[in-house]
Amino acid sequence: MLLTAWLLALMAGGSAAAQPSNQVVHLAKLEIYPAQLESYQAALKEGIKTALRVEPGVLTLYPVADRANPTRITILEIYASPAAYKAHLQTPHFLKYKNGTKVMVKSLELVETVPLLPGTKVK
Amino acid sequence: MLLTAWLLALMAGGSAAAQPSNQVVHLAKLEIYPAQLESYQAALKEGIKTALRVEPGVLTLYPVADRANPTRITILEIYASPAAYKAHLQTPHFLKYKNGTKVMVKSLELVETVPLLPGTKVK
Repeated sequence: MLLTAWLLALMAGGSAAAQPSNQVVHLAKLEIYPAQLESYQAALKEGIKTALRVEPGVLTLYPVADRANPTRITILEIYASPAAYKAHLQTPHFLKYKNGTKVMVKSLELVETVPLLPGTKVK
Repeated sequence: MLLTAWLLALMAGGSAAAQPSNQVVHLAKLEIYPAQLESYQAALKEGIKTALRVEPGVLTLYPVADRANPTRITILEIYASPAAYKAHLQTPHFLKYKNGTKVMVKSLELVETVPLLPGTKVK
């Protein structure tokens, strides 16, 4: 089942070359319990690194912490397509992150957005 | 004076190869007056395209609008260094954007952040 999800993710990655208009772009806004911040960051980084490595359809996951309040974390998430996003949610590394950090997350808001300049890269 | 600022921006771009730890990363959170949204978006896009083209030290400016409330705009800003950021603020294209959109912006919050995985790209 997890292998299937992973294969689906790889296949959905084929749409990495999809039109930018098909992209799914989110801002995830989290607040983490202070005592869990270090553990949370470790799990987040591991999950993101794996996703970027094995999922062509995960175009980026760019996490930042507010400098003045590091328990507030924002992640810019760009997926190549709805299929790539759906597949990501079923990957073993995402499920490990999601289940492993559940108790560390005080709040999560997932904001659906429209990219104003889709296709913009990071140099 | 504007030419000098532009040259400074180009020079600061030399730090595009700087260590990620030296990067300046912001989340700009804006609310735009609804009647001005189209004009604002045009000015924003023009300013960003120019910055990305002529300033090597502007690593990205990635703008998104909340899908449910498009007058709320967030920009992930990544500069190669404090010098690159400072130079950007003095470029003709930034000043044109800033002065030209002043009356369109209902509110602006600039959040200083720490990138948790600096060096992350967009595929």
